[in-house]
Amino acid sequence: MPELRKDPVTGRWVIIASDRSRRPSDFSRETVTLHGGRFCPFCPGNELKTPPEVLSYRSHGEPNQPGWSVRVVPNKFPALRVEGTLERHGEGMYDKMDGVGAHEVIIESPEHMTTFGGLPEKQIESVFWAFRDRTLDLKRDLRLRYILFFKNHGEPAGASLEHSHSQLIALPVVPKRVLEELEGAKRYYDFKERCVYCDMVRQEAESGSRVVVETEHFLAIAPYAPRFPFETWIIPRRHSSHFETADAPLLENLAWVMRTVIRKQDRVLECPPYNFVMHTAPVHESHMPHYHWHIEVIPKLTKVAGFEWGTGFYLNPTPPEEAARYLRDAGLA
Amino acid sequence: MPELRKDPVTGRWVIIASDRSRRPSDFSRETVTLHGGRFCPFCPGNELKTPPEVLSYRSHGEPNQPGWSVRVVPNKFPALRVEGTLERHGEGMYDKMDGVGAHEVIIESPEHMTTFGGLPEKQIESVFWAFRDRTLDLKRDLRLRYILFFKNHGEPAGASLEHSHSQLIALPVVPKRVLEELEGAKRYYDFKERCVYCDMVRQEAESGSRVVVETEHFLAIAPYAPRFPFETWIIPRRHSSHFETADAPLLENLAWVMRTVIRKQDRVLECPPYNFVMHTAPVHESHMPHYHWHIEVIPKLTKVAGFEWGTGFYLNPTPPEEAARYLRDAGLA
Repeated sequence: MPELRKDPVTGRWVIIASDRSRRPSDFSRETVTLHGGRFCPFCPGNELKTPPEVLSYRSHGEPNQPGWSVRVVPNKFPALRVEGTLERHGEGMYDKMDGVGAHEVIIESPEHMTTFGGLPEKQIESVFWAFRDRTLDLKRDLRLRYILFFKNHGEPAGASLEHSHSQLIALPVVPKRVLEELEGAKRYYDFKERCVYCDMVRQEAESGSRVVVETEHFLAIAPYAPRFPFETWIIPRRHSSHFETADAPLLENLAWVMRTVIRKQDRVLECPPYNFVMHTAPVHESHMPHYHWHIEVIPKLTKVAGFEWGTGFYLNPTPPEEAARYLRDAGLA
Repeated sequence: MPELRKDPVTGRWVIIASDRSRRPSDFSRETVTLHGGRFCPFCPGNELKTPPEVLSYRSHGEPNQPGWSVRVVPNKFPALRVEGTLERHGEGMYDKMDGVGAHEVIIESPEHMTTFGGLPEKQIESVFWAFRDRTLDLKRDLRLRYILFFKNHGEPAGASLEHSHSQLIALPVVPKRVLEELEGAKRYYDFKERCVYCDMVRQEAESGSRVVVETEHFLAIAPYAPRFPFETWIIPRRHSSHFETADAPLLENLAWVMRTVIRKQDRVLECPPYNFVMHTAPVHESHMPHYHWHIEVIPKLTKVAGFEWGTGFYLNPTPPEEAARYLRDAGLA
């Protein structure tokens, strides 16, 4: 019997159609493999083929020279630009504004032939430090209201270059999907006087059926109402609305959890294409008792079709309890 | 300079990144071609390989025999089922309910080797009559609150069988994306005392820059803030909230417009995979002065990636004025 489940934060319903295909081997997977060989603007030695770096962690060398371990550069084909104002213009009944913002690429390693999940823990930790440092720098620009970090891994998930990288887009408006989370979490807080994510962490840790991995600082779970098969959320155990307040022990632990989730996913789903996105509070808000930053990891296994576009309703063939069991049980090579 | 544009109904912002790739030939297209040859459960003679039909238009023959021109059958692997109740259950902080609903397939033609856009006008009109007849039948089930008609054309757009068909899903809740339209249209109506779609029809017909095709009863436009390149909306000129109230002259004209839009799209974009969805008012609402049914046609040209999943914000490389010009100028073979 299919089941309708409601996400407790956004109110989004999903159909868990558990009598359809659902085991890892039932999906027609597109394993991501690295080819190398072609010219790559992200490889050491080619620093001048990207716009000048805005951040690098390096053991030696000048900016825009080899010697870095993580390097952040503006996107060469940015979706948004730093120039412009926040003024809104009308066009009859319509509204528009300049595409003000920032679009940067975080090059996660000098190594071309290693995927994100294959990087050493310390390297992944450095990537999270870069997320934090870029946030602290960009939040000084008062025109920017939201900063999103995300990753597209593999061509089917939207990556155009294979060298391991993630991206940030800083926006002059708080995006709709984040607003939905903020508003839903606020409604829950107003009613319960508790953070909905803190409650989720408590209930999930206690029941255990949707837990993928847990550590001192984080819980990785298959959420109760996932849009996609094998979707996994990484949530800090202690309440915190802003990612950029994370300290060293937290980022060190996050690197381990992230690497573990990706490697388990690579093992169970044979190195699938995937996306991850980080949801955190808008940069200029102070501490929010009702919101809680987290990372959503989404392997790309199914096609989004007319039904999903038409409704915002998702059809998921894999119950999260089964997805969590597969991921939990997967040993790491 | 990229531009941020706001959809006047839902408030959704999109980035029109016009300095990225944008012409029809810039997309890596996956032309949909028909192969035939394999066993097809939708072909005449194979009627017993589908669940028994719930509707057919036929010149001769018994139900579930050849002789039909359009045939509607329950989906063999339904996402929702007719059995069950609307009762909601708790699971700690979470909510769920039985997956009650209907999931049907509209087989649009007995011909296997013709795509939807290649069907004669009269045949497409029959498909719309089937949409109407199924709505009138299903709305007698008071548990069902929303009926969505949609089409997935081509494997990249989610189709698993190539024989031309569309689908309906009847749901026990009004889906989020439709609610957003209903609420946004209501806000506009409360403020202006006019329907936002009627205003859109007026402004677009007058400016002409985003018009793809216009007829006595319909306007097909590239919307002001489209999520996807070459997205096209078909909107009735006269106000109407419920599709199922459409009469014969309207459906006849709709068939012509739909066929024209699909054929122009096939010509400009070389037979791309696409989805269409019909948005209409919830079935048990009476006439709504603020809502206006319409069809959204979305060719599948780009990949939805981390940024879109993370934000609900869309990045569209093709300004709708250019998309409309290409489609408007395309002659039909």
